[in-house]
Amino acid sequence: MEQTPPARKPTIRDVAAVAGVSRGTVSRVINGGHWVSPDARAAVEDAIRRTGYTANHHARSLATGRSGSLAFLLTEEHHLLFEDPTFGLLLRGAAESLSKRSMTLVLLVAGTDAEKANVLEYVRAGHVDGVLLVSSHASDPFLGRMHEAGIPIVSTGVPLGLEGLVPSVGIDEARAAREMTAYLRSRGHRRIAHIAGPDDTPGGRFRLAGFREEMGGGYDAELVERGDYSRESGSRAMARLLARGRDIDAVFAASDGMAAGAVAALRREGLRVPDDIAVAGFDDSGLAETHDPPLTTMRQPWARISEEMVALLLDVVAGSPGRDLMLPASLVVRESA
Amino acid sequence: MEQTPPARKPTIRDVAAVAGVSRGTVSRVINGGHWVSPDARAAVEDAIRRTGYTANHHARSLATGRSGSLAFLLTEEHHLLFEDPTFGLLLRGAAESLSKRSMTLVLLVAGTDAEKANVLEYVRAGHVDGVLLVSSHASDPFLGRMHEAGIPIVSTGVPLGLEGLVPSVGIDEARAAREMTAYLRSRGHRRIAHIAGPDDTPGGRFRLAGFREEMGGGYDAELVERGDYSRESGSRAMARLLARGRDIDAVFAASDGMAAGAVAALRREGLRVPDDIAVAGFDDSGLAETHDPPLTTMRQPWARISEEMVALLLDVVAGSPGRDLMLPASLVVRESA
Repeated sequence: MEQTPPARKPTIRDVAAVAGVSRGTVSRVINGGHWVSPDARAAVEDAIRRTGYTANHHARSLATGRSGSLAFLLTEEHHLLFEDPTFGLLLRGAAESLSKRSMTLVLLVAGTDAEKANVLEYVRAGHVDGVLLVSSHASDPFLGRMHEAGIPIVSTGVPLGLEGLVPSVGIDEARAAREMTAYLRSRGHRRIAHIAGPDDTPGGRFRLAGFREEMGGGYDAELVERGDYSRESGSRAMARLLARGRDIDAVFAASDGMAAGAVAALRREGLRVPDDIAVAGFDDSGLAETHDPPLTTMRQPWARISEEMVALLLDVVAGSPGRDLMLPASLVVRESA
Repeated sequence: MEQTPPARKPTIRDVAAVAGVSRGTVSRVINGGHWVSPDARAAVEDAIRRTGYTANHHARSLATGRSGSLAFLLTEEHHLLFEDPTFGLLLRGAAESLSKRSMTLVLLVAGTDAEKANVLEYVRAGHVDGVLLVSSHASDPFLGRMHEAGIPIVSTGVPLGLEGLVPSVGIDEARAAREMTAYLRSRGHRRIAHIAGPDDTPGGRFRLAGFREEMGGGYDAELVERGDYSRESGSRAMARLLARGRDIDAVFAASDGMAAGAVAALRREGLRVPDDIAVAGFDDSGLAETHDPPLTTMRQPWARISEEMVALLLDVVAGSPGRDLMLPASLVVRESA
């Protein structure tokens, strides 16, 4: 059971005395836990519990203007948080990065205009120090509105429309798409179709650009369809491609989900993967490894992306101008292509 | 289509005029929606959309010291947010309930002690007005610590160890378990096994109690195994039951996930569901309907649970003592039992 707190509100001095450390150590633990040994931190956290001390965050906020938290803001409908595995991978990575800094990760999901308006007010009110913006669409004025409000932001992938204004962390999309396309060509495939993502997302725009560039003279606009990264959209895109004729020997989808949908559509037509048509995905989102057949895909370095986003955002919060960071993706060859 | 908002920022007066209700009714809807008829609430929500009205949370926070947000706090490891579908159902419902009140839902996930300490500081600092506590284990002192800190909390399910102190919304677990057990008996099953959840969760404790009560003299402790609600744990529990002998004609699992795991374990032994052994789950979490075979289960009223949690928490934030609300679950008969 908890010890009853003393009548007088306990101070850092009380905590330091109980923990047997200096007041400076106590305040370092309270203000982020940097430069403190694990033992000292454990002693201080135990002393905080035993004395019933509570850090005065209002005072801290007044002093530093900080809340000790960052928002993981997903500007999509809620169901996508669960249906698109890449969001979960980024969320877990960001949570671990903040946890080891003794900071709190606040997940905000704003899919509708009303939710975006409420989230903007919440963030403006200073309840988080900055925003990790996940999957914003260029067509969405929301990012611009947050940027104008002077909110520290780091975006996943190049923030279309605000390039150079909002720092970002992502992979070199075009280069990764060229690498996958070159791999498929190296396997002897020539009639390669591409299921692209939405044109207002970096993954949709630059993966298609890389595919087109690598295909060179072999590029055929008739072999390109778009989806929204979901399995269903990949299945529908594959059906449209097949409806135009079957002289396709490989399909490169801009997400593992769309690749899985394409495989399902091919099976419905009695076509075998990879024997009749090879199918490659993108992301290595976890789905790729467990899929039947396991998907050949481009792996995004999820843990590193989220760690770099947190580190970069904390720099921006501290006043750094920020920058765009492009990380390499890596080809993972499995059975589907 | 949405109507274009007027150049002048719309006021409560505009909303009241469009909805044809008093301004008092509009502000009751905005500030929690209590003491408002469903019709009036619908009219106001429609008018809010049509006028483009947004509640001024800054003014509200200055006046009330509130943040205009509630936390959805999951005290589990992050991966469970994605692996246990019931959390997603509650999250979506809570987000919708807050969105229509022009409030923000803040998702906090605290699985480790360090994360819990950080979250406690964050909540104490007033960055949220109250906490919707999801799946706290009785063995976890965290709930007690938040309660002692005077934080408005509503728990999903009876808060073991703090009954009567922390308001809760959930189903009548024991009654629901009795109903499923009675159904299995009505189908002629007598050797019924139960795969229970953890004893420090209301679902683990009271579903077993209801099963035991309904089985009466037919209760056999040898036919009870525990899991942690996950598919894998259900599969292992079923394997342990089979290892003890095969005179089982039905299995009642305390979650759809554990039921799915049990079905997998039975298939590995060449047993057919429901022909050889009937299997029933609990929750109707979405998995139940798509499972092969579709699972007979007890449906929890997810949308209503989350709506009632939000309404009750707003009452508590407003100073009401709160109460425990028990909602009925309903039997859903599909193919597995």
